[in-house]
Amino acid sequence: MNWRHKCLLDLDDWTREELSLFLEQANYMEELLNRPIKKVPALRGKMIVNFFFEPSTRTRVSFELAEKMLSADVVNWSASGSSVSKGETLRDTAWTLESMGADAVVMRHGAVGAADYLARKLRKASVFNAGDGTHGHPTQALLDLHSAWKKLGSLEGAKMVIVGDVLHSRVARSDIKAFSKMGVKIVLSGPATLMPRDITCLGAEYEPDPKVAVKDSHMVYLLRIQQERQRQGLIPSLDEYHVRYGATEDLLKFARPDALVMHPGPINRRVEIASEIADGNQSIILDQVRSGVAVRMALLYLCVGGGK
Amino acid sequence: MNWRHKCLLDLDDWTREELSLFLEQANYMEELLNRPIKKVPALRGKMIVNFFFEPSTRTRVSFELAEKMLSADVVNWSASGSSVSKGETLRDTAWTLESMGADAVVMRHGAVGAADYLARKLRKASVFNAGDGTHGHPTQALLDLHSAWKKLGSLEGAKMVIVGDVLHSRVARSDIKAFSKMGVKIVLSGPATLMPRDITCLGAEYEPDPKVAVKDSHMVYLLRIQQERQRQGLIPSLDEYHVRYGATEDLLKFARPDALVMHPGPINRRVEIASEIADGNQSIILDQVRSGVAVRMALLYLCVGGGK
Amino acid sequence: MNWRHKCLLDLDDWTREELSLFLEQANYMEELLNRPIKKVPALRGKMIVNFFFEPSTRTRVSFELAEKMLSADVVNWSASGSSVSKGETLRDTAWTLESMGADAVVMRHGAVGAADYLARKLRKASVFNAGDGTHGHPTQALLDLHSAWKKLGSLEGAKMVIVGDVLHSRVARSDIKAFSKMGVKIVLSGPATLMPRDITCLGAEYEPDPKVAVKDSHMVYLLRIQQERQRQGLIPSLDEYHVRYGATEDLLKFARPDALVMHPGPINRRVEIASEIADGNQSIILDQVRSGVAVRMALLYLCVGGGK
Repeated sequence: MNWRHKCLLDLDDWTREELSLFLEQANYMEELLNRPIKKVPALRGKMIVNFFFEPSTRTRVSFELAEKMLSADVVNWSASGSSVSKGETLRDTAWTLESMGADAVVMRHGAVGAADYLARKLRKASVFNAGDGTHGHPTQALLDLHSAWKKLGSLEGAKMVIVGDVLHSRVARSDIKAFSKMGVKIVLSGPATLMPRDITCLGAEYEPDPKVAVKDSHMVYLLRIQQERQRQGLIPSLDEYHVRYGATEDLLKFARPDALVMHPGPINRRVEIASEIADGNQSIILDQVRSGVAVRMALLYLCVGGGK
Repeated sequence: MNWRHKCLLDLDDWTREELSLFLEQANYMEELLNRPIKKVPALRGKMIVNFFFEPSTRTRVSFELAEKMLSADVVNWSASGSSVSKGETLRDTAWTLESMGADAVVMRHGAVGAADYLARKLRKASVFNAGDGTHGHPTQALLDLHSAWKKLGSLEGAKMVIVGDVLHSRVARSDIKAFSKMGVKIVLSGPATLMPRDITCLGAEYEPDPKVAVKDSHMVYLLRIQQERQRQGLIPSLDEYHVRYGATEDLLKFARPDALVMHPGPINRRVEIASEIADGNQSIILDQVRSGVAVRMALLYLCVGGGK
Repeated sequence: MNWRHKCLLDLDDWTREELSLFLEQANYMEELLNRPIKKVPALRGKMIVNFFFEPSTRTRVSFELAEKMLSADVVNWSASGSSVSKGETLRDTAWTLESMGADAVVMRHGAVGAADYLARKLRKASVFNAGDGTHGHPTQALLDLHSAWKKLGSLEGAKMVIVGDVLHSRVARSDIKAFSKMGVKIVLSGPATLMPRDITCLGAEYEPDPKVAVKDSHMVYLLRIQQERQRQGLIPSLDEYHVRYGATEDLLKFARPDALVMHPGPINRRVEIASEIADGNQSIILDQVRSGVAVRMALLYLCVGGGK
């Protein structure tokens, strides 16, 4: 199969067959992470710009490591102190990047659709969405998929429960799409104040009580709780949230005994997840981090290197 | 001809012959930008420090891409959070950089003469002025020259009109020098409040009305208008500025029909330039951006790599 | 001798024999700094993260140059705008870095023991302490040792006077350990308000009058005075400090005529050191900077490259 995607904006137009192929490719890349010399020349002489309008060291570092392991040249462009703050339009910045010779742009932006817009303005360079507002974070979905798939094998018919602040979460939106495509049944749980109005449109069910929701689930995915949600009155308190919705030993008793515990990181211990669960043997949180580098390598290799 | 310059502080001591040789060299470098593998080993094992006291992502990224395409190793040193903010003198920082093994320092600084001072303090390392106060921005002049020369061929006898905030513009100062050397006649235009007192010393004429100024011109160069000029009372309003001095279809009717439209970027659409002009077929603004990487490669190659 | 250290947290468990071997290794690395091509493939395919919680361009740039000269891949992670500011524990960040494939982490942190803690949490990656609170700055001690050893040969029986703000100085703590191990006698001097209570525990003597302290000394090491010490009332004024405790011609008359003048940088001219001394022929301050890159290369080579 030839790889037909030049960009990754969201996963809407990826077929299940493509996702499967991609996961296999990510496995090859993850092997590289175990070698003493973590470097292949696949993207030598390619120029990649990491273009971050929102601070996100974790995602940026993951991409940067992936880029460097593939021997690409990397330039970091953060929005503060840039032409952007001088009032340049995103369109003009995009054209500037392409004129300078950028082969690919990895962008995080606060506005929904920003990566999509960038991709339409660029003629040749690849665009990778590293998070656009509350819309999507597709490489997070790919890494979540990869780490779960490695543990569970086929995901067809598996059940995943996503607990927490779905309303503000681009991770949840991207995961619902990606896991649904692979045949996973998704149930959302958490306070009704943190649920979007369009739950059924998302293709997921809602069960307010996490103890009910996690029944028979293969994956329990905890979303990060921002402390400001408490000030906004969306949750009573972080402590109460933990007791009611946090991943604790008490909650996991209701799931399958081998259910995987997942989290996009960085984790808030004693808020959405108890320490003994985060560090317990059901947790694959660090596998997710490792898959993050592997899937970003696979993505860059397929889209920028042409898979050759 | 051997290349005799180790640094680029300003273009005062470059001969016309050197400028011509340099433009040819930049052409070779620009070819590299079109290749799938944008990388040559010319500066392998050279250490380059990008030392920016003022935020300027665009210039820094352009230099950084040029450095990496030549296989140099690159370290970014921004002034905030550095020894500089701890009160270290520029002289001591310079000596520190050289002692650490830097082969070249690219510096942007708010003070006139800062790059010159740095170069006098360093014994071996090359210094490249990426903008020093209102004094000069010589690599901008080189890229402007390169992009215009590629379109027009010989510049001898051509006419260039520079419109806008000449008073605060290091770009204008450097361009006047560089284009004059190549035999270009320069006319400045724009509000009298934004003109320096030493216009005639600069070797340029002044014509307040841009419609008169652009008559028979081969190049119309728009300078960026900082929004604070309005608060300072130097221009009535951004809208009025646009009508009176902006590059519009109305203004360009008075120039040669094939006149090139140039701008150092980032552009303010609907202030100094109308969108239809910026994106129109007379505009070479993106060629300028591309030339920026090429001339910086040529410069580093000739001055640090010894042209070998 | 095989190199047994994977990390450098402090120098407590380095033997004198190891220090000597290390200094020889640093000499080989310093030779590389004189070559036109400053690059060896020793750490090709190794991923190094520079993880700085406190601003320190000088130390970060020195490490970054050392890493790049050894062909490592380098990612800079500064704490501002990172997961850290989102409340992630240092432990979780450490695990994240390791899961992403980092082979080594260079960390500066404001908390005493932070590097030690990080090292205990990581299973495979090397950790290098680039300064932890007021505890230690061991690579500074190694570079000080290297630059003095190059000038004096054996340090056995030599006398070193450290003048200044010992109380707040991790440099002083690390230097006392390192130089003592090599057989150097240490005398501290400076205002009593800037001395720690545990001077004798440190294995050093205290002599309040620097003119008395420097008698027969081979090395006079000036510590940096932070301007806030004046506001805190710990010194009367920067001027008075200079007259009473600064390295001046007047003070150096009391030391050996060939005594080396040392400073960790960045220097405050006319505070802890007079300009004629900083730039005089007894000063080895820039040799220290150069040794900084060399010892960091030696360290990375031995600990990450396995000395192979």
